[in-house]
Amino acid sequence: MGLFSKDIQSMDDLYLHTLEDIYYAEQQIEKALPKMIDKASSDTLRQAFEAHLQETKGQIERLHQVFARLNKDPKGATCPAIDGIIKEANEISKDIGDAQVLDAALAAAAQAVEHYEITRYGTLVAWSKQLGHTQCADLFQQTLDEEQTTDRKLTEIATSRLNPAA
Amino acid sequence: MGLFSKDIQSMDDLYLHTLEDIYYAEQQIEKALPKMIDKASSDTLRQAFEAHLQETKGQIERLHQVFARLNKDPKGATCPAIDGIIKEANEISKDIGDAQVLDAALAAAAQAVEHYEITRYGTLVAWSKQLGHTQCADLFQQTLDEEQTTDRKLTEIATSRLNPAA
Repeated sequence: MGLFSKDIQSMDDLYLHTLEDIYYAEQQIEKALPKMIDKASSDTLRQAFEAHLQETKGQIERLHQVFARLNKDPKGATCPAIDGIIKEANEISKDIGDAQVLDAALAAAAQAVEHYEITRYGTLVAWSKQLGHTQCADLFQQTLDEEQTTDRKLTEIATSRLNPAA
Repeated sequence: MGLFSKDIQSMDDLYLHTLEDIYYAEQQIEKALPKMIDKASSDTLRQAFEAHLQETKGQIERLHQVFARLNKDPKGATCPAIDGIIKEANEISKDIGDAQVLDAALAAAAQAVEHYEITRYGTLVAWSKQLGHTQCADLFQQTLDEEQTTDRKLTEIATSRLNPAA
């Protein structure tokens, strides 16, 4: 959740900082996906990444709606977790020559990103409900559903199309 | 999956490096959990962390069994993802004064750790099956089941005991 210039005193503060954390994370994901699309060889995997890039843009738009409902300006908080996950994805990509092995690594890296989003949106849905932000809970839930669908799609790709024994 | 001294040429190489990645990650989690136990105020949350610390030791032992089955020495590969997730957990902890808010942040941070483990063990189960390492798949599946149970337990804690409206 990054480096804060002020202390977090209440659940409202923690909620806002977690929102800023995922806002930063989504922006980093939006930047990382085109590079992953370029590296993917399998059409199925590339199409899944392309679809997720479009989905990510919609998810960022939803975060703008949440900020607006809370009467806050959209702002990102540096998120070492997503930075680390994306760094790891970039590093492994550089080390792989074989296209099929690279696709397997890219799919696994994308699933790590998805799971980070799933955990944060899951938390934000729970906290939205606790804090009475019902409409924000609905917006976060829509994104959470999309992330879980994307994760399942990547699992399917990883266990079928990228099967090195096939 | 860290910085590699050599290229990854095959699925076997990628599999081994992912094993080394999660081995490093589990060791970092084993170091981080006692600090989280110290910071937690709620008995339920502290007990969940204590139980997960014991579970983590068992999971590391299982990784030793996997290395042995592959005739490899246990070795960790620096994993920027888990480093980032733990860094984020430490940073947020420093910024929170209120015990109940800190517990909520700690539970959310622990869920981010769980989800990282879930995604990596899920990948390792799939690749073990593809590469014919059936017994390794069983070992990874046992850990995956434990991680998913822990994640559900943390969700339950986050949505009940730590409810600030309660």
